[in-house]
Amino acid sequence: MRVISRIDEVHEFLDEVRAQKKTIGLVPTMGFLHKGHIALIERSIKENDITMVTIFVNPLQFAEGEDLSSYPRDLHNDKEQCDAAGVDLLFSPSHEEMYSQQVLTSIQIKDLTNNMEGESRPTHFSGVATVVAKLFNIVGLCNAYFGEKDWQQLQIITKMAHDLSFRVRVFGCPTVRHSDGLALSSRNAYLTPKERKSATVLSRSLQKASETVQSGERSTSVIMAQIIEEISTEPLVSLDYIEIVEGRSLKSINKIKEGSRILLAANVGEARLIDNVDPYVGIQ
Amino acid sequence: MRVISRIDEVHEFLDEVRAQKKTIGLVPTMGFLHKGHIALIERSIKENDITMVTIFVNPLQFAEGEDLSSYPRDLHNDKEQCDAAGVDLLFSPSHEEMYSQQVLTSIQIKDLTNNMEGESRPTHFSGVATVVAKLFNIVGLCNAYFGEKDWQQLQIITKMAHDLSFRVRVFGCPTVRHSDGLALSSRNAYLTPKERKSATVLSRSLQKASETVQSGERSTSVIMAQIIEEISTEPLVSLDYIEIVEGRSLKSINKIKEGSRILLAANVGEARLIDNVDPYVGIQ
Repeated sequence: MRVISRIDEVHEFLDEVRAQKKTIGLVPTMGFLHKGHIALIERSIKENDITMVTIFVNPLQFAEGEDLSSYPRDLHNDKEQCDAAGVDLLFSPSHEEMYSQQVLTSIQIKDLTNNMEGESRPTHFSGVATVVAKLFNIVGLCNAYFGEKDWQQLQIITKMAHDLSFRVRVFGCPTVRHSDGLALSSRNAYLTPKERKSATVLSRSLQKASETVQSGERSTSVIMAQIIEEISTEPLVSLDYIEIVEGRSLKSINKIKEGSRILLAANVGEARLIDNVDPYVGIQ
Repeated sequence: MRVISRIDEVHEFLDEVRAQKKTIGLVPTMGFLHKGHIALIERSIKENDITMVTIFVNPLQFAEGEDLSSYPRDLHNDKEQCDAAGVDLLFSPSHEEMYSQQVLTSIQIKDLTNNMEGESRPTHFSGVATVVAKLFNIVGLCNAYFGEKDWQQLQIITKMAHDLSFRVRVFGCPTVRHSDGLALSSRNAYLTPKERKSATVLSRSLQKASETVQSGERSTSVIMAQIIEEISTEPLVSLDYIEIVEGRSLKSINKIKEGSRILLAANVGEARLIDNVDPYVGIQ
């Protein structure tokens, strides 16, 4: 595995790859890799000749007072995991390499960024879109893999890639979970054992809601009330939002149907956790 | 010359060009080509193996009430001029090809877009940046040529290309002028003969100001007053703004020095005209 930190080295490496007509899979991450990331990497390896992972904790997507400084990092372990998984190229740039000048440019995606995470973190998605656009430009023509755990982010990046004609095909990959249902997240590292146990209510409530939908219930208010009630049984879990939306446009709906998505966010101790489900499929 | 209207045809054409290790020069335009555009094309031809011109009147950069519907168009003549100039590829997409979905994505460049054109046309540069980003993505690795007449636009695109790591080198080319000094512009077509004559005061005032600077005057307020007085002698010309700024950052300055730029905009009849000068060089 090649490990590089400079943008011009990426160009050099990938231009050679492309000259050989090889396809490139891209897995952009903020590091502290877990099995969710590894699932993205494995899918990329399966579908592409060359797989590139990027590790960069992007300050643009953290607001003042969020967990930028405490965000977990372990580049040594990340490298070992990437190497073991069969990654060809690991790009781990410094802040100075990515932002050598003061960044004046930002990307906005309207409508998709107003609700849910966008409401709780108003500058977050602009920061995500901007760094992802930059990574897409650095890499060029490729297939890019993102987790469905960040469902809203996935829709935003998909839309941005279309609107700006990036030569990047964006793929979403199913959320990877612990055996008790908790979605894998780097931020789970913040949880105490007690909080860790309480946090399982998130996926459990989404699974129960999915079962209710599969039994014939279609009213979003009924389903939301059921989830709110379930989560209220865990005093350590403080719900931020619960929304049921059309899965692509992220517009709120009254009646659940094919393509609907249930999404929630909650604070559990120091951790802000998110999860979502296709109620016709349920937690898997 | 190949004339194509579909994005996937551009990819096909340019992928083949790149496979042959040929360099690509890009000249993005809104059509109704004049000798200013042809100068960009000639520079591109000189510096690249393949030259591509794009013609697209981009609705995103026109505000409600601006001249989108009346903006001059003559695709037949544009094709002839491109062919005669030695262009290899003319990309002239339909609105539907460029914006097949409702566009939700936009690009903002702060600081550089606040004053001058940005103040008079608050949504203009976001529209320019968004379509230029899209064209850069469609074309990929290339050298791109823009006119210095749109000096503020040139600085904004240069900064965007850096911030988002586009693999595009952005080059500015000197403004081309009629023999009486008027900067070439598609919008000159709106001028009556009388207005056309009055409009020469713009470049004349910039030239006189440059001479004053070259004689030793450094005060921006003195220079601005001189230009305002000169322009006030032409009743058909209504000054919108006059600014003296640091040429890259576009920040207002009090004392003129190397790298300063004088920019102005004025309404002349139906036409909104802009012009600018490096006062150490003058109108050429």
